[in-house]
Amino acid sequence: MKKIAILTSGGDAPGMNAAVRAVVRAGIYAGYQVFGVTRGFQGLINGDFVEMTLGSVADIIHRGGTILRTSRCEEFMEEKGRLRGLEALRDAGIQDVIGIGGNGTIRGLYEFSKLGVNTVAIPGSIDNDIPYCDMSIGFDTAVNTVVSAINRIRDTATAHERIFIVEVMGRESGHIALTAGLAGGAESILIPEVPFDLDQVVERLKQGMKRGKLHSIIVVAEGCCGAYPLAREIQAKTGMDTKVTVLGHTQRGGMPSAMDRNLASRMGKRAVDLIVEGKGNMMTGYQGMKIVDVPLAQVIEGKKDIDLDICEIARILSI
Amino acid sequence: MKKIAILTSGGDAPGMNAAVRAVVRAGIYAGYQVFGVTRGFQGLINGDFVEMTLGSVADIIHRGGTILRTSRCEEFMEEKGRLRGLEALRDAGIQDVIGIGGNGTIRGLYEFSKLGVNTVAIPGSIDNDIPYCDMSIGFDTAVNTVVSAINRIRDTATAHERIFIVEVMGRESGHIALTAGLAGGAESILIPEVPFDLDQVVERLKQGMKRGKLHSIIVVAEGCCGAYPLAREIQAKTGMDTKVTVLGHTQRGGMPSAMDRNLASRMGKRAVDLIVEGKGNMMTGYQGMKIVDVPLAQVIEGKKDIDLDICEIARILSI
Amino acid sequence: MKKIAILTSGGDAPGMNAAVRAVVRAGIYAGYQVFGVTRGFQGLINGDFVEMTLGSVADIIHRGGTILRTSRCEEFMEEKGRLRGLEALRDAGIQDVIGIGGNGTIRGLYEFSKLGVNTVAIPGSIDNDIPYCDMSIGFDTAVNTVVSAINRIRDTATAHERIFIVEVMGRESGHIALTAGLAGGAESILIPEVPFDLDQVVERLKQGMKRGKLHSIIVVAEGCCGAYPLAREIQAKTGMDTKVTVLGHTQRGGMPSAMDRNLASRMGKRAVDLIVEGKGNMMTGYQGMKIVDVPLAQVIEGKKDIDLDICEIARILSI
Amino acid sequence: MKKIAILTSGGDAPGMNAAVRAVVRAGIYAGYQVFGVTRGFQGLINGDFVEMTLGSVADIIHRGGTILRTSRCEEFMEEKGRLRGLEALRDAGIQDVIGIGGNGTIRGLYEFSKLGVNTVAIPGSIDNDIPYCDMSIGFDTAVNTVVSAINRIRDTATAHERIFIVEVMGRESGHIALTAGLAGGAESILIPEVPFDLDQVVERLKQGMKRGKLHSIIVVAEGCCGAYPLAREIQAKTGMDTKVTVLGHTQRGGMPSAMDRNLASRMGKRAVDLIVEGKGNMMTGYQGMKIVDVPLAQVIEGKKDIDLDICEIARILSI
Repeated sequence: MKKIAILTSGGDAPGMNAAVRAVVRAGIYAGYQVFGVTRGFQGLINGDFVEMTLGSVADIIHRGGTILRTSRCEEFMEEKGRLRGLEALRDAGIQDVIGIGGNGTIRGLYEFSKLGVNTVAIPGSIDNDIPYCDMSIGFDTAVNTVVSAINRIRDTATAHERIFIVEVMGRESGHIALTAGLAGGAESILIPEVPFDLDQVVERLKQGMKRGKLHSIIVVAEGCCGAYPLAREIQAKTGMDTKVTVLGHTQRGGMPSAMDRNLASRMGKRAVDLIVEGKGNMMTGYQGMKIVDVPLAQVIEGKKDIDLDICEIARILSI
Repeated sequence: MKKIAILTSGGDAPGMNAAVRAVVRAGIYAGYQVFGVTRGFQGLINGDFVEMTLGSVADIIHRGGTILRTSRCEEFMEEKGRLRGLEALRDAGIQDVIGIGGNGTIRGLYEFSKLGVNTVAIPGSIDNDIPYCDMSIGFDTAVNTVVSAINRIRDTATAHERIFIVEVMGRESGHIALTAGLAGGAESILIPEVPFDLDQVVERLKQGMKRGKLHSIIVVAEGCCGAYPLAREIQAKTGMDTKVTVLGHTQRGGMPSAMDRNLASRMGKRAVDLIVEGKGNMMTGYQGMKIVDVPLAQVIEGKKDIDLDICEIARILSI
Repeated sequence: MKKIAILTSGGDAPGMNAAVRAVVRAGIYAGYQVFGVTRGFQGLINGDFVEMTLGSVADIIHRGGTILRTSRCEEFMEEKGRLRGLEALRDAGIQDVIGIGGNGTIRGLYEFSKLGVNTVAIPGSIDNDIPYCDMSIGFDTAVNTVVSAINRIRDTATAHERIFIVEVMGRESGHIALTAGLAGGAESILIPEVPFDLDQVVERLKQGMKRGKLHSIIVVAEGCCGAYPLAREIQAKTGMDTKVTVLGHTQRGGMPSAMDRNLASRMGKRAVDLIVEGKGNMMTGYQGMKIVDVPLAQVIEGKKDIDLDICEIARILSI
Repeated sequence: MKKIAILTSGGDAPGMNAAVRAVVRAGIYAGYQVFGVTRGFQGLINGDFVEMTLGSVADIIHRGGTILRTSRCEEFMEEKGRLRGLEALRDAGIQDVIGIGGNGTIRGLYEFSKLGVNTVAIPGSIDNDIPYCDMSIGFDTAVNTVVSAINRIRDTATAHERIFIVEVMGRESGHIALTAGLAGGAESILIPEVPFDLDQVVERLKQGMKRGKLHSIIVVAEGCCGAYPLAREIQAKTGMDTKVTVLGHTQRGGMPSAMDRNLASRMGKRAVDLIVEGKGNMMTGYQGMKIVDVPLAQVIEGKKDIDLDICEIARILSI
C-alpha cells in the first residue's frame, strides 16, 4: 500500500486542521495509508510518524491550531537536515509528503523535492502573502478576528471620543491590515507596501473630527512603524487622546471561518489528487475562486502584490 | 447638482448597510447628492426620499438588516407602478437609481431601466443564486451563521449519539446548504439541484455508525424536501433517534462578516463609478474575486449553477 | 485507593464537561481514582467504566456537550435497574457516584442513594428549573445563545417591519424565555407560569407600532402555547406580517460561557469535597452566588419559582 | 413635571446603554421627564442636557460603549466644579441625578449629594471592584471577552508547545484575571491581592510539562507585575518559548452579555424606583443575586475583597 506523510509547519493558521482532515480522508478514500508527522520538518527529521485513521481526524474541522503540532526548524533549512528527513521517510516506506504552511514551508518542500521526494504544498498562512494564491488558509479567520476586535475598540473609542491605533500582524505585508481596515471602517490604514505621510494622516483625522466624527481608528501592520511612537506623534499633533492596542497572538487562533474550512477541504482534496495523478512538486493555489495547480518552483520565484484599489476605496469610504 | 437614489429591496441580507454606506460616501465624494429611498420600490412609488449625509451612514458598516428598510412590492412588478415611481423620481429631480437586492430586485431595476432611468444593481442575497456573481452580499455571513448552528447541534448530537437534520434556507437553490454543509462536516447534504436517493443516505448513515461515528448531521435546503417527513423515514429505516432543527430567520440577520462588508464596500463604490461613467443598466458582478460590470439584460437571462465538485468533496470528506 | 464514578445524564448542557474536568482533577488531587461512566445511568447498569486521568480531561473546559455521553434511561427508573447498577459498581469497587444533570438525574441519584450508595448531584440543566439552585450549569450559555438569535432576528424584523415570535426551550418553565426576553428587549414574554391574555398582547403590539416601533419580538416558552397558531391569531388581529422562529436544539450546544464554566468548576470541586467529608446524598446548590450543600431529599420536595418582578420589569422597559 | 438627569462617567463598560435605556423608560413610565447628560460630569458642569424619549433609547440594549459619551472630569473633583454643575441643574429645573460608573463616579455622586442634590449611583465597571456589589455592569462581558481571547491563544500555544502570558485589565484588583483565569483553565493566575513566588510558578510549569501538558497559559492582572519582564524570567528559568499578549482595550467594548443587560435593566429600574420613593444618595447594589439599596456613604467606606477560594480551586483544577 502506498504511503503519504502530512505535516504542518511554521506559524499555525486556523483551518490547518480542516486541511489535515481532508488529506487524511481523501488519502484513505484513494487507497493510501496516511501518516501524520509531528512538529513539522523537525518531526520529519526525527521520524515521528503516526498512522492516521478516519477517526483520528473526526471532530477537528472546527478547531484552531493544528493537531499535528508545528515548529520552525532550522535544521531542515540545510541539506544535511533534509537528507536525514529523506532517510527517515525511506525507513518508513513513505513516498509522498504533503505540507501545510506559509512561504518558509513551501521553500522547504521545494528544496526537499530536489532530493527526489514527491511533495505537495498547501498554502496555510494568516498573512496571505503567498504568490499565486488569492487567499491562503487562515487569512479569512484572522481578518474576522481583527474586525471583531475593531468593533469592540470602536465602542470604547466612541464613548470617550478618542483616537485608537490598532496594530495587526504583518511584518512584511499589509494584507490583514488592509482587508480588516476596510471591513472595520478604519479612518487610516498603514501598511509596509505603501509609504505614508504622517501629516496627511493627521490632516485626515482633523478633518474627520471637524465633520463630527466621534472617534478615529487607525489600523497599522506591525511591519509598518511602531504603534506607540506613532500614537505619541499623533497625540502631539492633534491634541487628541490617542491609545494603542496590539492584537498580537489572538489573531492566530480561533475557530476557522466557513471560508477557511472550505478552502482547506478543497485544497486538501486536490493535494491528494495530485499525488494520485503523480504530479508532484506543486502547490494547490487559489485563483479566481478556483483551486489551481502551481509548480513549487514558480511559487518560490513569485511575489504577491497588494491591491492598491482597496487602499483607495478604504480611503474614500471613511471620509 | 446631480442626484442618485439608493434603495434596498426584497429579503434583507447582512452587508446591505455596508453597501448603502459605500454608495452614499462614494456618491458624495464624486460630487452627487444621494437620497435614500425608504422600503424599496414601494418607497420609490411613494416618493419617500431622504437626503443622506456622510454622517447618516456612520456606524452602520457592521449592522445587519438595512437602515433603509425593505419590502416586497407587488405594485412595482406592473408597469403602472413603475410609471408612478418614474414620476416620483422626476419630481425629486433624481436621475439615477442604485438598488441592492436579489433576482427580483434586479428584474425590477431592469424593467425600470426600460422607462429611461439609469439603474445599477448591487447583488445582495443570502441565497447566492444570482448569475455572474460568485458571491452575493450576505451569503458568507449566512453560511457562517449556519456553520455556527451546526457546531452547536453537533455538541448535543454527539452527547446523545443522534442523527440531526438541519434545514437551511434555499427554496430553489442549494448554495447555503452545500457551502455550510461542507464547512460543517455534514454527513449528507441534500439540495434541490441534485436528486437524492433516500436508501443511499440511509446506507451512508449506517456505515458511518458502523465505523464508530457518534452522530450524523444531514443538512437539507428547504426547497429540497420536508425535514420532518425525512426525519421520520430515516428514524424508521435506521432505528436511530433523529431530530430536526429548522434554522429559519436566524440565518438572515447578524453582524456581516469581513468578506460581506468588503464585497459590499467594493460593489457600492463600483456602482457609483458606473453612474459617474454614464454606464447604466448594469450589475456589479463578482467573478474570480474581481468586481465586474454585467449588463442587467444578461443577468436576467443567466442562470447560476451549483458546483457539483463540492458535492463530491463533501461526500468523500465525511466518510 | 478509594474510587469515585462520575456520570452525566438526561439532556446535555454546556458546562457539563467543565464539571467533569473539575471532578476528575479535584478527585485525583484528593487521592481518589476517578472513573467515567459512559451514557449516564445506562452505563452504570452496564458497568461501562473508564478510568480518567489528568490528561483525559485536558482541553475540554470549553467544549459543549459531554465527553461521557448521556442518555435518558428508563431501566434505572425502576428498582431492578438500580440494583443492577449497584452490582456493577460493587464489582468495580466503586463507593461513590457523582452525577451531573437535571431534576430527573437528581431523582435517580436520590433513589440510588437509598440502596446505600453515596451520591452527590451537580445541577446541570439549561432549563434552570432545579430547586435551591439560582443558576444551573448551562443556563447562562443557553440564555446567551437565545439572546444572540434574537439579535439576528431583530435585524430582519426591523428591515421588514414585522412581528417575530421566537419559541425557546422550556416545557414547564419559563426561565429561559424570561431571562432571554428581558436581555433581548422583547416586547412580550409568554411563559407557562403566567397565564396570558391575547388581547393584551395585541393591544401592546398596536400601541408600540403607534409610537413608531418598527418591529416587535415576542418570546414564547415552548410549554406555553403553540407558536404557529399564536402567529396566525396575532396576524389576524393586528394585520401585521407575523413570522415564527423555533430555536430548537441550537439552544443546547455551544461553547459554555465563563459563568457556566466557573459554576461547573466550583460545583465539581465541592462535589469531591463532599465525598471526602463523607457527606453523601447532597446536591451542590447555588444560592446568593455561593455554592451550598442541599440534601437530595429536600431538592426532590422543592419547587423552583419564577421571579415575577422580572416579568414586570421586562414589560415596563419594552414600552 | 419632575425631571431626572442620567449620565455615564469614567471608563465605559458594556451594558451601560442597557442601564440608560432602563432609566429612561422606567422614568417616563413613572411620569418623569428624563434628560441625558453628555460626557459625564463634564456635561453636568456645562449644562449639556438632552431630553430623552422612549424612541431615543430604542435599539441600544445590545450596544457596547455609551450613547451618552463619558469622560474623566478633573473639575468635578473639586467643589467649585460641583457648584457649577448644581447651578446648571437648577437652571434646567432638574432635581435628581442618576449616574452610571465605577468607584470614581460613585464618589463624585456622593460629594455632589452633599450639595443637596438627590443622587443614585448604578455600579458600572468592568473591574468589578465596587463594594456591596457582587457583579458590576460590564464585568461578565469583559470576562467572556478575555476567556474568548484565551481560547484563541490556547490554539496557537498548543500548536507550538509554548507558554503564553495573557495580561488583562485590573490595576488594583484581580477580579477579571481570577474569574477569566478559572474559566479559561489557566495554569497560573497572578493578581495584585495575592503576592506570588516566581519559583513556585516556574515549578508548576515544569511539573505540568513533565505530565505532558503541551502548553501553559498564565493570566496576569496589569497591576500585578510587568508581563514582559515576567516572560523573560520564565523563559530563562524554564527554557521554554514564552510569549506575551496584552489584551488592552478590546476588553472594554463589545456587545453586552445577557447577564450584563439584565443586571443593567434591573438596576436602572431600581434607580428610578428609589427616586420615586424619595430615597436618594443610594447605590443599587447587587448581593446574593438580588438588587439591594446601599447608602453611598457606606459604599465609599467599603472595600471589595477577592474570593481566595477561587484562587485555590483554579490552582487545583489546572494541575
